[in-house]
Amino acid sequence: MSPERIIDLRSDTVTLPKEEMIEAIRYAPLGDSIMGEDPTVNLLEKKAAELLGMEAALLVTSGTMANQIALMSLCQRGEEVLMGGDSHIFTLEGAAAAAVAQVQIRTIEVPDGIYDVSKIERNLNAGDIQRPKTSLICLENTYNLNKGQIVSLENMKEVRAVSKKYSIPVYLDGARLFNAAVELGVTPADICQEVDAVQICLTKGLGCPIGSILAGSKEFIEKAILNRQRLGGGMRQAGIIAAPAIYALDHMIDRLTEDHQKASRLATRLAAIDGIRMEDVQTNIASLELSREDWNSQFLIEFLFTKGIKVKNIGENRVRMVVHYQITDEDIDRVVNAFEEFASVITMESTV
Amino acid sequence: MSPERIIDLRSDTVTLPKEEMIEAIRYAPLGDSIMGEDPTVNLLEKKAAELLGMEAALLVTSGTMANQIALMSLCQRGEEVLMGGDSHIFTLEGAAAAAVAQVQIRTIEVPDGIYDVSKIERNLNAGDIQRPKTSLICLENTYNLNKGQIVSLENMKEVRAVSKKYSIPVYLDGARLFNAAVELGVTPADICQEVDAVQICLTKGLGCPIGSILAGSKEFIEKAILNRQRLGGGMRQAGIIAAPAIYALDHMIDRLTEDHQKASRLATRLAAIDGIRMEDVQTNIASLELSREDWNSQFLIEFLFTKGIKVKNIGENRVRMVVHYQITDEDIDRVVNAFEEFASVITMESTV
Amino acid sequence: MSPERIIDLRSDTVTLPKEEMIEAIRYAPLGDSIMGEDPTVNLLEKKAAELLGMEAALLVTSGTMANQIALMSLCQRGEEVLMGGDSHIFTLEGAAAAAVAQVQIRTIEVPDGIYDVSKIERNLNAGDIQRPKTSLICLENTYNLNKGQIVSLENMKEVRAVSKKYSIPVYLDGARLFNAAVELGVTPADICQEVDAVQICLTKGLGCPIGSILAGSKEFIEKAILNRQRLGGGMRQAGIIAAPAIYALDHMIDRLTEDHQKASRLATRLAAIDGIRMEDVQTNIASLELSREDWNSQFLIEFLFTKGIKVKNIGENRVRMVVHYQITDEDIDRVVNAFEEFASVITMESTV
Amino acid sequence: MSPERIIDLRSDTVTLPKEEMIEAIRYAPLGDSIMGEDPTVNLLEKKAAELLGMEAALLVTSGTMANQIALMSLCQRGEEVLMGGDSHIFTLEGAAAAAVAQVQIRTIEVPDGIYDVSKIERNLNAGDIQRPKTSLICLENTYNLNKGQIVSLENMKEVRAVSKKYSIPVYLDGARLFNAAVELGVTPADICQEVDAVQICLTKGLGCPIGSILAGSKEFIEKAILNRQRLGGGMRQAGIIAAPAIYALDHMIDRLTEDHQKASRLATRLAAIDGIRMEDVQTNIASLELSREDWNSQFLIEFLFTKGIKVKNIGENRVRMVVHYQITDEDIDRVVNAFEEFASVITMESTV
Repeated sequence: MSPERIIDLRSDTVTLPKEEMIEAIRYAPLGDSIMGEDPTVNLLEKKAAELLGMEAALLVTSGTMANQIALMSLCQRGEEVLMGGDSHIFTLEGAAAAAVAQVQIRTIEVPDGIYDVSKIERNLNAGDIQRPKTSLICLENTYNLNKGQIVSLENMKEVRAVSKKYSIPVYLDGARLFNAAVELGVTPADICQEVDAVQICLTKGLGCPIGSILAGSKEFIEKAILNRQRLGGGMRQAGIIAAPAIYALDHMIDRLTEDHQKASRLATRLAAIDGIRMEDVQTNIASLELSREDWNSQFLIEFLFTKGIKVKNIGENRVRMVVHYQITDEDIDRVVNAFEEFASVITMESTV
Repeated sequence: MSPERIIDLRSDTVTLPKEEMIEAIRYAPLGDSIMGEDPTVNLLEKKAAELLGMEAALLVTSGTMANQIALMSLCQRGEEVLMGGDSHIFTLEGAAAAAVAQVQIRTIEVPDGIYDVSKIERNLNAGDIQRPKTSLICLENTYNLNKGQIVSLENMKEVRAVSKKYSIPVYLDGARLFNAAVELGVTPADICQEVDAVQICLTKGLGCPIGSILAGSKEFIEKAILNRQRLGGGMRQAGIIAAPAIYALDHMIDRLTEDHQKASRLATRLAAIDGIRMEDVQTNIASLELSREDWNSQFLIEFLFTKGIKVKNIGENRVRMVVHYQITDEDIDRVVNAFEEFASVITMESTV
Repeated sequence: MSPERIIDLRSDTVTLPKEEMIEAIRYAPLGDSIMGEDPTVNLLEKKAAELLGMEAALLVTSGTMANQIALMSLCQRGEEVLMGGDSHIFTLEGAAAAAVAQVQIRTIEVPDGIYDVSKIERNLNAGDIQRPKTSLICLENTYNLNKGQIVSLENMKEVRAVSKKYSIPVYLDGARLFNAAVELGVTPADICQEVDAVQICLTKGLGCPIGSILAGSKEFIEKAILNRQRLGGGMRQAGIIAAPAIYALDHMIDRLTEDHQKASRLATRLAAIDGIRMEDVQTNIASLELSREDWNSQFLIEFLFTKGIKVKNIGENRVRMVVHYQITDEDIDRVVNAFEEFASVITMESTV
Repeated sequence: MSPERIIDLRSDTVTLPKEEMIEAIRYAPLGDSIMGEDPTVNLLEKKAAELLGMEAALLVTSGTMANQIALMSLCQRGEEVLMGGDSHIFTLEGAAAAAVAQVQIRTIEVPDGIYDVSKIERNLNAGDIQRPKTSLICLENTYNLNKGQIVSLENMKEVRAVSKKYSIPVYLDGARLFNAAVELGVTPADICQEVDAVQICLTKGLGCPIGSILAGSKEFIEKAILNRQRLGGGMRQAGIIAAPAIYALDHMIDRLTEDHQKASRLATRLAAIDGIRMEDVQTNIASLELSREDWNSQFLIEFLFTKGIKVKNIGENRVRMVVHYQITDEDIDRVVNAFEEFASVITMESTV
């Protein structure tokens, strides 16, 4: 492998905590957070609630846990939840919605991150003796972990209107909500006011080592605390997780635009290579398809790996790259160069 | 309401048992079937297994119970099951797949009762730390309780090939399997040999008062017995349910073609009415859409009700009629007449 | 085996329906009971509600289903239910309370069918972040399927008082409630007014082929209907089950005293045999222990079987006999004779 | 409140991490542990597996999560688990065994931390159509979170013999296993070789901020990883939790004897006060009962609080104190003094 520093573009979850985050852990006052006595956790939850414009917030260990607690707290067993077919809750949570929260997911397609409200409306069930009642609409913003598409505030308002018409709450899986907010030029609270409850991930673009924040009404968070405990998510001196998160909320949100710019630059340059078809890049996620039949994503990944670059295979001849705070302009250049080299090598080989 | 006899076309579940079925109850030897000692139940299960070409069969109280027991017996909690989006298991079982069997349903569209095997293949998951493993493919034949579409033997064989390639079992919700078999001109066993387990409903076209049959391997049925008991489906002298079923398997299958002919005749004649768009009728189910904007399905239903005819509302301006053994040729005439009267009355009114 | 008629004392579930019950099926008006249109089911449910002094009642397929629906309808997932350690719900329902209703059972000992209210009170939990909330107290009357002990009205009133003090509902598994009622000389409604919901079994002393009745408030029954459907317990022309039940409620309750007298006579006579220790017989269940070390219950059971008598093994050297309407005075004599013969044969053998 | 430093005896979960633990976080190499790439987590899991004499180990967020994952990985839904009635799994995990793992708990009394193997044997079920199969025996060592009683190696071997006889695995909730080991003078592995799987808590006597370790066979840990993910327990840079744990396994186990000596000294001195009845103290937990009727535990707790001492109410006139590494000899003196003052004040008041 290359002697150079590894460029890890597989996900923004690979981000290592910044030195300042580790320092924050060092000086954080701690306590037993199951007893509600960890001052750092309490501060983080207060801060996060304010930032998201919600009554209350709760620190949990992961986005999956946040999502499952939300389903458990907003739905009864045996109800139906409507969401996009590429939602993380449906595709990447080990079917916990069925196994743990015990709700049935009904999916609709959400092309380009645009929720078709008439399609939502047609897929709602009032519930009867045989038909399960729709009790929740789940949005995801940014949508699709391989695309990072922004759901516009207008689109969210449209969904909100349908939700109000039928008195069905809306939950937002906002694992990458801040990416959407900075790009839309609105505050996180502007987005969250269109939903009843939300989760945001601390370990993606924000760079924290562990954790997600669940936020909503006080009543919702009270239920969530019980469900978190039941899933084994209650922690003792969780201030060591909360301390980096406080730093992140203060310093890591606005800078996400830099990631978006780099992702965009990366995409523009790669798109110029014959044989690569880039997906539209809206935030920090750049996915591509190898359009030449003689190219192979598995071989590309191995080639890049020899250059010290890690990317993720997301299906037949499709590859994902996620830009995060540890990726520099030079890294982008290195990545583009590696792709160009791949293209020329492969092309030569296949023309021999 | 009309003094005439009610013509109930809402479903084939409304069928009353024939006199011979009631007689069969009268003379059936009974015993405690939870202890395996009801001779009539044992005879029925043996007969049904043979008819379906399976090792073993089990009497249960309903199609929903049969389907849920199948999911519980063929899948582990937290696995994924693939099926058509209009499947009864997904739409009409109170989300029991999530609430009781705790499996996640992934749906594909099945237009005209044709399963697209490449779509099936693309939607299978091998399973990993985040992605649930696909552990079952569920077919439905006839497909779609509002359409009664026949899944061809060729299509079933294609699905079977994919299933074998990935070692994923296939379950057939054959609530109306016999309707498919008589129309395809094959035996029920010909169809069932393409699947690992199957259920057939006794209370639809077959006219029994209660019950469904689940069939598959001995090992499957052993698990099914435990799961049936756990759901409260174990019964004592269930011979009173089994006796009419034995009659039905002997006498009520072949005559299903008569229902199909009547449904077809009904559809042909209704299609001639301006303002009515009939769905393609393949078996005993005839659905239609009111194509004139000034017509309204709710009003149609009420109008027909005054004529002693019951049909089912299945969505905006859509109506379903299911033909069964209690529907005579004269009934078909009466229904057509009533529709024609509706059309003329409504048309007059709207042209005034 | 003996040429004589089999005397089956294993359970009162083995009872075959009376001729009159089969006749009742023959003339019962039927309909689709999932649509609420089976007149016989509707009549039975009305009749049963009145008899039990409850607002509403629901026909279900089994006692296990009735009990599980009650847990699902009265509790939330993850709550705690308090009951006697020998309760059917805890011992004989395949752990469905955990697997299906998902409630945790906390047991107390109920010696001689007497619920110790101070013990109940000590075992209630208000619920907190770690401790599950007690949301239901389950009584069983008669208590213990191997003993048939009567819970007195006074004892039930005491439990009721505790239940009201803590606002925790009481559910009665009254599978053999009528046995208790006739013995106590009170009406079923007298007993049921001490509880919020109740089930009674039609297939035990009442002799019906299939079914149990769940009763309680209208709100409870509405929830129960949804849960029944989800478990696959919704039936179509269930009038064929309801018809014998109507007969049973009219004709089979008062006569239970005869069963009790026979059970008592059986016990008195068997107790006179050296080597047999009878349990106290309060209703129709007579259990015994073989007190001689050289005797063996398995051998006893096989010996009795050669005499055309079936009894049930309920543990090391313990045997259960349940008297029901098909057991005559002559049968009792035959059973006693068989035991006496067993005792003399065995004694001879062991003294040789 | 007292100007002096707070003495918190409510639980050993209140322990704050030592300076060295925080330093360990600072220098820990990190990675994405869901991808298996966190070197610190990997090192901890290797180290813990060795210490416990197991094939593999897994870091999870809490003891509750460890226990629930164990139930999910060792049992099927609807099976029965046998354990002591004061076990944490039964009393303090929000009925997650029923709600999440969906197993039924059968409890036996375990007086003085001694498991009666004949009682265990009598409570095992082979499983049949109605009876759930016992699929796991759960031990707890030290037993009872209000008593901290040591289960002897001999007793564990006896249970092991029964477990082998019936081929039922044994799981050990060893939240305070190290307390038992140091007191028994054996290694943790000596204890763990009597069981199939085990969890130990890092946040109790060991003083870590967050986490528990689950250990067992490789196959068990593979299942556990999937179940952890499904519960939302998968973490990203979990090295920040693992780093203090590595320190704790190296430095915090042997010193537990000091806690036991202090607890013992505390108990001896408090027992000398008239009106206080101490429970037997075997490890670091000292519970007492107020034996004078005019004394009240709630008042005692408030009195101690004014002296800067926190203890836990565990029932009517019962109080628990747990000694941990942050409790000094001087603290013990202060606590004893405070109790003596309470006794004299209260006695004066009540004799006025």
